[in-house]
Amino acid sequence: MSAMNAFYAQSGGVTAVINATACGVIETARKNRNKIANVYAGRNGIIGALTEDMIDTNKESARTIAALKHTPGGAFGSARYKLKSLEDNRAEYERLIEVFKAHDIGYFFYNGGNDSMDTALKVSMVSKRMGYPVICLGIPKTVDNDLPVTDNCPGFGSVAKYVAISTMEAALDVLSMAKTSTKVFVLEVMGRHAGWIAAAGGLAGNKPEDAPHIILFPEIPFRKRAFLKRVRECVNQYGYCVIVVSEGARYANGKFLAEAGTRDAFGHSQLGGVAPVVANMVRDKLGYKYHYAVADYLQRSARHIASAVDVDQAYAVGRAAVQFALQGKTAVMPVIKRVSDQPYRWRIDATPLAKIANREKMLPRRYISKDGFSITKAARRYLLPLIRGEDYPPYIKGLPNYVRLKNASVTRRLKSKFVV
Amino acid sequence: MSAMNAFYAQSGGVTAVINATACGVIETARKNRNKIANVYAGRNGIIGALTEDMIDTNKESARTIAALKHTPGGAFGSARYKLKSLEDNRAEYERLIEVFKAHDIGYFFYNGGNDSMDTALKVSMVSKRMGYPVICLGIPKTVDNDLPVTDNCPGFGSVAKYVAISTMEAALDVLSMAKTSTKVFVLEVMGRHAGWIAAAGGLAGNKPEDAPHIILFPEIPFRKRAFLKRVRECVNQYGYCVIVVSEGARYANGKFLAEAGTRDAFGHSQLGGVAPVVANMVRDKLGYKYHYAVADYLQRSARHIASAVDVDQAYAVGRAAVQFALQGKTAVMPVIKRVSDQPYRWRIDATPLAKIANREKMLPRRYISKDGFSITKAARRYLLPLIRGEDYPPYIKGLPNYVRLKNASVTRRLKSKFVV
Repeated sequence: MSAMNAFYAQSGGVTAVINATACGVIETARKNRNKIANVYAGRNGIIGALTEDMIDTNKESARTIAALKHTPGGAFGSARYKLKSLEDNRAEYERLIEVFKAHDIGYFFYNGGNDSMDTALKVSMVSKRMGYPVICLGIPKTVDNDLPVTDNCPGFGSVAKYVAISTMEAALDVLSMAKTSTKVFVLEVMGRHAGWIAAAGGLAGNKPEDAPHIILFPEIPFRKRAFLKRVRECVNQYGYCVIVVSEGARYANGKFLAEAGTRDAFGHSQLGGVAPVVANMVRDKLGYKYHYAVADYLQRSARHIASAVDVDQAYAVGRAAVQFALQGKTAVMPVIKRVSDQPYRWRIDATPLAKIANREKMLPRRYISKDGFSITKAARRYLLPLIRGEDYPPYIKGLPNYVRLKNASVTRRLKSKFVV
Repeated sequence: MSAMNAFYAQSGGVTAVINATACGVIETARKNRNKIANVYAGRNGIIGALTEDMIDTNKESARTIAALKHTPGGAFGSARYKLKSLEDNRAEYERLIEVFKAHDIGYFFYNGGNDSMDTALKVSMVSKRMGYPVICLGIPKTVDNDLPVTDNCPGFGSVAKYVAISTMEAALDVLSMAKTSTKVFVLEVMGRHAGWIAAAGGLAGNKPEDAPHIILFPEIPFRKRAFLKRVRECVNQYGYCVIVVSEGARYANGKFLAEAGTRDAFGHSQLGGVAPVVANMVRDKLGYKYHYAVADYLQRSARHIASAVDVDQAYAVGRAAVQFALQGKTAVMPVIKRVSDQPYRWRIDATPLAKIANREKMLPRRYISKDGFSITKAARRYLLPLIRGEDYPPYIKGLPNYVRLKNASVTRRLKSKFVV
C-alpha cells in the first residue's frame, strides 16, 4: 500500500491538553511518512471534513508542532456538531467518504468524547460498505472523565489539578478573612452528569477541618436542609465553609439547581450559574457573608498549571492511535490502563469503539463519602496520580508562549459544496 | 534603647503575596534581634491587637517563615475592620497603645491598603500624645493597585498575571469553539473603583483581533448601545468576542452594573455578579451563545502563578519597613519607585503616610484607548514589567506545598477585655 493521508479532527469542548494529543498524532505520523504522507486537520473539527475545509499540517514546522504540546484550546478549531444517525442522514457520512477519497485519506483520527467515538465507529462502518475502507481511530479527550473502559481521560487530570489548587488557594484566602468577612465560599466547576471534576476539588484537603468542607456532586440528589445544616456546622466548627459545586448538581427529581433551559447542539441542557443559586440559599437561610467563583472555561484551558501526567497521557494516546492505525487496527480507541497506584504506572491498550460509544462512566458511589459531601480514600487513590507533576509552558515577558498555527488550507478537489 | 517587640498585622483583603511581605518583616527583624526582640502578629489583623490576641512568631522555625514567601492568603488572619475616627472612638486607639505598652511593643507594622495607612498614621499620632511613642510603618498591599505615590502595589502584579493568562487561555478555548458554540465569553475581575486589574486583562493580546476585544473599566461610563455594537462587530470580524469586565463597571449615573445592595465593614458596596449581567445583555440583544467566568478569590489567591517581580517587591517592602523603622523613620510607608521601564528597574523609598492615607489612584485616562474598550501602549509599558517572571511554589504529590503556621498565642498580660 502506498502512503495515504490521514485526517485528524478535534471534537466537542476543548481541553488544556487536546493539542498535546494532536502533537502526538502529527509527530508520530511524520515519523512514518512511508505510510502516512500528510495529516490533514479539520478546520473546526468534523465540519472541516464535511465542507472540504482542511488544514495542511505539513505547512507547520517541527518546532511549531512541538509547541502544540504546551498550548491549550483546539489549534485547528473544534466543533459541537454531532452527525445524525445513519438512517437520518446517510448523506453526511457519504460526504465524508467522498472527501476522504478525493484526498487519499486512509486514516481517520477523531479526538473527542462519547459522541465522537460513536461517529468514528459509524464512519468506519460506512466506509467499508462504500468500498473505501478507512482506518478509523477514536482518541479520548474529555475534561468530564466520563468515557468507559479507559482508566481516565486526557484533559481531566489538568482540570482536576486546577480545581484542587484553586480550591486550596481560595480556601486559604477565606480562612484568613472569615473572622470579619466572607464565611462561605462557593466554587462552581464543570461536570454535566458526572462528578469527577467536583471530586477533584476534594484533593485540596485531607482533614475534616480542611477545605473543601462540602462537595455537591451530580450523583447525589441535593437536599437543601441537609446542605444548610452542614454549612452551619462548618462555620460553627471551623469558622468558615468552602463548597465545591458541580454545574450538574441536581435535586432528587432530576432538576438541575441551575437549569438554564437552553440546549446545545448535542441536545444537552446548557448549564451555568449554580454557584449563585447555592450562595443565595446560604445568604437567605443562614445570613453568612459569601463569595462565589465560576471557573467555567478557565478550568479547562488552564494549561499554565497542567498536570504533567495528563500532558504525557494526552500525547501518548495520540501517538498510540497512529501506531494502532499503522498496525491495521480500526474502530478502536487507545485507552489508559492503570497498572498500579503507587508508584503510578499506566500503559495504553486498544479497545473497540463499540465498547466506548455513547456510554458514560459515573463517579462510583464508593468514591463519595457516606454523607454525600466529600470524597473517600478510594477516590483519593484514584485521583492523586492524575494530577502529578507540573508541566509548565515556556514564558516570554511574563506570559505563556502559546503557539498559533498558520492553518493553511488544503486545496479543494471537489466541485460539490456541502452545507452543514 | 534595649530591644523592643514589634507588632505586625495584615489588613483587608489578602493577596497571593501578602505572606511574602510578612516573611520580609520577620526575617529582617530576626536579623536585628538586638533591636527587635520578637515579632508579634495580630490574630485576624488589628483585632488581635485590640483583643490582646497575638501570635508569637518566634515559635515558628526559620524554614516555616521562609515558606510564607510562597504561601497565599493571610497566614495570621486578616480583618476587614476599620478603626473609627479619633473623635468617634478614641478608646480603640488608647486600647492599642495599652496593649503595645503591656507587651513592650515599640514598632507597629500595618500591612494593608488606603484605610490601613490612615490607621497607622493615627496610631502614630495617638501613641505620641499618650507618651508612649510607637514607630509606625504602613506596608502597602492591595490587589487593587490604587495606593498613591507608590508606582504599584504588592499583590497587584500577581493578580494581573493571573488575569492576563486566564484571559489568554480562555480566549484560545473560545476561539477554537466559536464556529458552532460559544461566541461571547465574559470574564469578571476585581477592582472596585479602579480598573487596574481589568486593564491587566488587556495584556493577553496585542493585535486588534486578539482577545480581549472589550474591556469594561470602572473609569469609563458604561454605554450599553456602544458596547453591544462593539460585541457584534467583533463576532462579525473575528468570529468571537472576549470581554473582561471589572466588578466596578458602572453607568454614567454611577450605578454599578451589578449593585448587590449590601455594604461591607468599610461602608463600601459589596459587588459581584456583573458577568452574568453583561452576558445576559449579549444574549437578549444579540442572541449569541455565551459563557462567563467569575474569577473572584481565585485571582487574588493564585500563588501558583504569582509574578516573580511581585513576590520580590512584596518581600522588599516588608524588609524595607523594618529597615526604615530601625533607622527611626516613623509614619512612613515603603513605596516602589520605578527607575526604568526597559530594563525594568525599581527601588524602595519611604513616603509619609499622610501622603498615602485615604487616597485612591485611578487608572489614568491615557492608559485607556480612545473608544474606552482597551488599553494603550502606555498602559502596556506600565503593566508588563509587573507580571514578569514565574515564582512557582514547591509541590508535593501534585499540589502546592503551602505552609500552615502553628500560630501560638502570646500570653495575655492585661486583665481588661476589649470587645470589638
